[in-house]
Amino acid sequence: MKIIRSTSVILLIIFLAIKGYGNDAHELWLKKQPAKSVVISSNNKSVIVNNAIEALKNGWQGENNARLKLRIVKDKAINNDGFKLDNNQIKANTPSGILYGVYELLRRQQTGENTNSILSNPSYQNRILNHWDNLDGSVERGYAGNSIFWRGEKDLAVTANDLELWKQYAIANASIGINGSAINNVNASPKMLSSAVLQRVKSIADVLRPFGIKTYLSVNFASPAVLGGLKTSDPLNADVIKWWKAKADEIYKLVPDFGGFLVKANSEGEPGPQDFGRNHADGANMMADILKPYGGIVMWRAFVYSPSNKDRALQAYLEFMPFDGKFRDNVIIQVKNGPIDFQPREPFSALFGAMKKTSVMPEFQITQEYLGHSNQLAFLAPMWEETLNSDTYQNGEGSTVAKVTNGSIYNQKYTAIAGVANIGLDSNWCGYNFAQANWYAYGRLAWNDKLKSSQIADEWLKLTFKSEKENADNWTVGFLEPVKKMMLESREAVVNYSMPLGLHHIFAAHHHYGPGPWWAPKNARPDWTPPYYHQADSTGLGFNRTKTGSNAVSQYHEPLTSQLNNAATTPEIYLLWFHHLSWDYKTKSGRKLWDELCYSYDKGVNQVRDFQKTWDKIENYVDSTSFVEMQKLLKHQAFDAKVYSDACVMYFQQFSKRPIPFELERPVYNIEFLQSIDPRLIYQEGGNFNTSKILNSKH
Amino acid sequence: MKIIRSTSVILLIIFLAIKGYGNDAHELWLKKQPAKSVVISSNNKSVIVNNAIEALKNGWQGENNARLKLRIVKDKAINNDGFKLDNNQIKANTPSGILYGVYELLRRQQTGENTNSILSNPSYQNRILNHWDNLDGSVERGYAGNSIFWRGEKDLAVTANDLELWKQYAIANASIGINGSAINNVNASPKMLSSAVLQRVKSIADVLRPFGIKTYLSVNFASPAVLGGLKTSDPLNADVIKWWKAKADEIYKLVPDFGGFLVKANSEGEPGPQDFGRNHADGANMMADILKPYGGIVMWRAFVYSPSNKDRALQAYLEFMPFDGKFRDNVIIQVKNGPIDFQPREPFSALFGAMKKTSVMPEFQITQEYLGHSNQLAFLAPMWEETLNSDTYQNGEGSTVAKVTNGSIYNQKYTAIAGVANIGLDSNWCGYNFAQANWYAYGRLAWNDKLKSSQIADEWLKLTFKSEKENADNWTVGFLEPVKKMMLESREAVVNYSMPLGLHHIFAAHHHYGPGPWWAPKNARPDWTPPYYHQADSTGLGFNRTKTGSNAVSQYHEPLTSQLNNAATTPEIYLLWFHHLSWDYKTKSGRKLWDELCYSYDKGVNQVRDFQKTWDKIENYVDSTSFVEMQKLLKHQAFDAKVYSDACVMYFQQFSKRPIPFELERPVYNIEFLQSIDPRLIYQEGGNFNTSKILNSKH
Repeated sequence: MKIIRSTSVILLIIFLAIKGYGNDAHELWLKKQPAKSVVISSNNKSVIVNNAIEALKNGWQGENNARLKLRIVKDKAINNDGFKLDNNQIKANTPSGILYGVYELLRRQQTGENTNSILSNPSYQNRILNHWDNLDGSVERGYAGNSIFWRGEKDLAVTANDLELWKQYAIANASIGINGSAINNVNASPKMLSSAVLQRVKSIADVLRPFGIKTYLSVNFASPAVLGGLKTSDPLNADVIKWWKAKADEIYKLVPDFGGFLVKANSEGEPGPQDFGRNHADGANMMADILKPYGGIVMWRAFVYSPSNKDRALQAYLEFMPFDGKFRDNVIIQVKNGPIDFQPREPFSALFGAMKKTSVMPEFQITQEYLGHSNQLAFLAPMWEETLNSDTYQNGEGSTVAKVTNGSIYNQKYTAIAGVANIGLDSNWCGYNFAQANWYAYGRLAWNDKLKSSQIADEWLKLTFKSEKENADNWTVGFLEPVKKMMLESREAVVNYSMPLGLHHIFAAHHHYGPGPWWAPKNARPDWTPPYYHQADSTGLGFNRTKTGSNAVSQYHEPLTSQLNNAATTPEIYLLWFHHLSWDYKTKSGRKLWDELCYSYDKGVNQVRDFQKTWDKIENYVDSTSFVEMQKLLKHQAFDAKVYSDACVMYFQQFSKRPIPFELERPVYNIEFLQSIDPRLIYQEGGNFNTSKILNSKH
Repeated sequence: MKIIRSTSVILLIIFLAIKGYGNDAHELWLKKQPAKSVVISSNNKSVIVNNAIEALKNGWQGENNARLKLRIVKDKAINNDGFKLDNNQIKANTPSGILYGVYELLRRQQTGENTNSILSNPSYQNRILNHWDNLDGSVERGYAGNSIFWRGEKDLAVTANDLELWKQYAIANASIGINGSAINNVNASPKMLSSAVLQRVKSIADVLRPFGIKTYLSVNFASPAVLGGLKTSDPLNADVIKWWKAKADEIYKLVPDFGGFLVKANSEGEPGPQDFGRNHADGANMMADILKPYGGIVMWRAFVYSPSNKDRALQAYLEFMPFDGKFRDNVIIQVKNGPIDFQPREPFSALFGAMKKTSVMPEFQITQEYLGHSNQLAFLAPMWEETLNSDTYQNGEGSTVAKVTNGSIYNQKYTAIAGVANIGLDSNWCGYNFAQANWYAYGRLAWNDKLKSSQIADEWLKLTFKSEKENADNWTVGFLEPVKKMMLESREAVVNYSMPLGLHHIFAAHHHYGPGPWWAPKNARPDWTPPYYHQADSTGLGFNRTKTGSNAVSQYHEPLTSQLNNAATTPEIYLLWFHHLSWDYKTKSGRKLWDELCYSYDKGVNQVRDFQKTWDKIENYVDSTSFVEMQKLLKHQAFDAKVYSDACVMYFQQFSKRPIPFELERPVYNIEFLQSIDPRLIYQEGGNFNTSKILNSKH
């Protein structure tokens, strides 16, 4: 009964999605506008180019009856699926390049940018979305409804609605340059490789391919034993290798351009080569050797840590550096932007640039696991820009994370970048309207890692909200500029009201929504508890990762090691990440650490309150559905921000024993209350307290 | 079982009270300090003078071994129980005068004021507390525990603890000049006049008398029928008159200095002469004639209104003015400060000064019925000062409410003032520590109606919080000045966050705590519902009481009538009391009415947040119990203020259809939530949401 009901709901949602309702934001940034006529000539008849032509016909905003040439060429200035764009011509070496050139042109027509003399090459060859979608239809850390790919292993038949939705998904990705999709969770079910499931994978791949998108699968390392019935999954075992070969063969028969495997091994309980006395290189290389003949790659995640080490931040580096140079050239080590886990702010992972003889790719998280799920505005481009521009110094000054991963410094056969998707069956795809901007931003940065967040926000706002009716000057001053400012400030606001000054991992347990700096049950793994990370005590606050502490600073290249080893030269945004400092430590503002901490939390709360004011002011520029949705979200966020701020300030005050600076707004809640309740349950949309759930909640 | 338990609790409280614990604020402003030695000579041996001598010995802070003369004299410069104070001598015409002179001297010693060449005469002869205490021990609109006088009609025996508590109460009153106490609720039980109850009245009077305090009773007009078994309570009926004569005789045998009767007649369902076709003068004069031989007075309340009149604010005036000059000289018409009912702000009642041939006395409310009960700081001296200084113009400019009631303009045989007490069995007497300042302020203003609120706050803070240990300069700058500022601003803050700009009666029904501007059930009396008062509609807001409306302005004397008839010349604090104005009406700030309204609410919220900061800053100056109590109260108040502000702004916005000014903080709650819940139940001490009660609450 329950299954039938949820299926009906899903069908209804898909139906609504396909109908393309005006106000539900389902159209993403691909707003339908009356197109003008364009005469197109092409020297290529591939399905990809045909899709490019269709996009042009549907969206042409240039001169009426203009003539446009699409030309597949051999141009050495163009790399991979890059393109050249002139007013009347798009040239590319591949059909995909034509497609991206077309979307670039259409975007520039809408945003009013120059459309001439443009050469655009992608920063990364493989620009991939990672979907943490489970076979049962749920999405791990998904806040936008169930999976667009899966409904359960008993419901693998492909419907017309599936095909239409996947096509919309593919178009959206193509329009921002995404060319790969790992369509299932890294915590992978072995059943993903069953023949029945692979039939559905083929169907998905068939829809994505005409838009230049390769399909990838996350695989469970124990599949040979669990799915194949072998006695082991030891990567050096001949039967195991044989099993994987047969499986690869089966996959490539169904999906000839299959992209490859994404593997989470020996991490958080997932199986891996260490279970059989082998190492990461043994495991990854076995798969790489099998995929190589087909042109496939292995993305092997570096997100590993064990409870025994005294500093989790050290561990990916410690575990992977010994194997630098030991991996095949079609293995890419997939490294999260920071050393811990997608916190609102982390310094870059020390692995970036340090692995000089191994391909490395950044993994970003688009879904807002630690940044308010789909209840809080957090435009993430500034966070990714911050990571990409971080200088590793590994090959001299200017060895940014971008450059040490995009092939411009190290000789990587394959370059790639991954983003954990925020996409689900919600009619707006992403849980809330502005979350689409993060999908958009990820694609744009993956294509061009030099793009500024402000440029991306500018584009997205114009594509999404600009209307023909509007006077451009008014719109710019009245809507674009203030809303862009709000977007650009939004992630920093989250940092301020949740984990400022380098604090990290002080969120509520399990669901990772709201504050939990106190959470430390006796039987919990210490490295899963916030006190392990904030180290608050009567003397001060922060994790000592200097040479007198865990020495994580030494994993970085000079001058970073020295700079980060000294609190005075550590950027304050990372202060408590690297240092345990006295409550009276004098910060750059002149305030003592305790006061600065309180100021930061207070600032975050007031930033969100200011977002509310900004948004209320632009009511006349957007449709009422979009207006009300965002107004409610910001109201929720303002509430959550105060809860987060109050919780952390009052919790840390128990150690600091110092007053909250008297000029700051006082806490509204008390700490016992906040400690007794699941923070997801306090607030309901629009300002209710969710009393029945509060009462029944167990923490 | 329940009775035994509650009795035990009461006994425990009294025991604690008598022990005089340092931190429970039971000692009020009469802080015990090591007294110096003083040699006293007196020409009078009355118990009152003896009590004055005891107070001196316990509290002398002057020169050690100083000599002080107490002299009963006949000095025409001294009126009633006034006194003259020189450094070494106190002169008075009565023993009470000596007592008040002694307390004045002791207070001045503590506050460091001049103690020489002082002549002090009381503004009002009768300075009375009205206790709305019921025979069953409950206190109507009491927020400080049960009655100090009553425990139920079955528990009338007087205990040693009763006697001690009443004595402490009497001393406290004497120390601030209060000389009368009406010891039961104006909604009076006929049983109050039963012989059994009168025995306890005698005991109370016996304790109060040695401190110069007369005892009064509220009486039920239907007592002859209900208690006496007569067929009627018609005031012109001979049997009824006989019954009252006998009752008066009984009372005066027990209490020879009994002060008289307080009567709420034909008001809110209470019986009165109109039930028998008689009028207020018939009823009051009958009683006055009976009490006259004993020197007793009748305080006849003008708080009357009927549901049929279109403006409740008119009615006391309409009902009483026809009888001006018809009352006996020992009848005093007791008039609430404003025309409606103890709102956070009202203009003065038009009856003040208008009744030129009748004694009139002001009734103030010390207990915070409409100003946050005992959960919100509201120092009320500024409110009373505002009323007392309001110019009625009834006898030319300068005919202030004070002057038209204190005998300096009209020839009143008796002058009096009443304050509805905020006293209960709570160990701090008043529900919260700073509420004591309202009791104190009432007494001081009743004695001297020219006193400034700032002077009163200054005195109370010095008496209550100044310690010998403190450096006086530091204390003044660090504690006295900021806390005084907070006190003086506190009532205006309540006005701002609840009923600014002349709004009134928009509180939650029944308990009168929190917002309820929407409350209007179909079967409710219109004049008990807020929409009757705020008159919000799509065009604007406010009650039109000009000549085009209910014409309440005409009840005032020129130039007030003309001034109040014109919005431009109406003080903005009364704007919406007298005018229904367009949402776009331009206020003095330059802002439109709607915006100004939002600004006022926002200001109130932020005033309370500033109080929190002020109070947190003075932590080192007070004991931790007092500090924490007030900190919690202000936290509660800040929460309540935001609830009040959000509720009213969002409610009125439904009519104004205008945005909240974009520079102001947005609402935190939603109106459906606030409308669905008893506002007393949202917040629990310290920041909990009282979830179980919320869930079970019925509104």
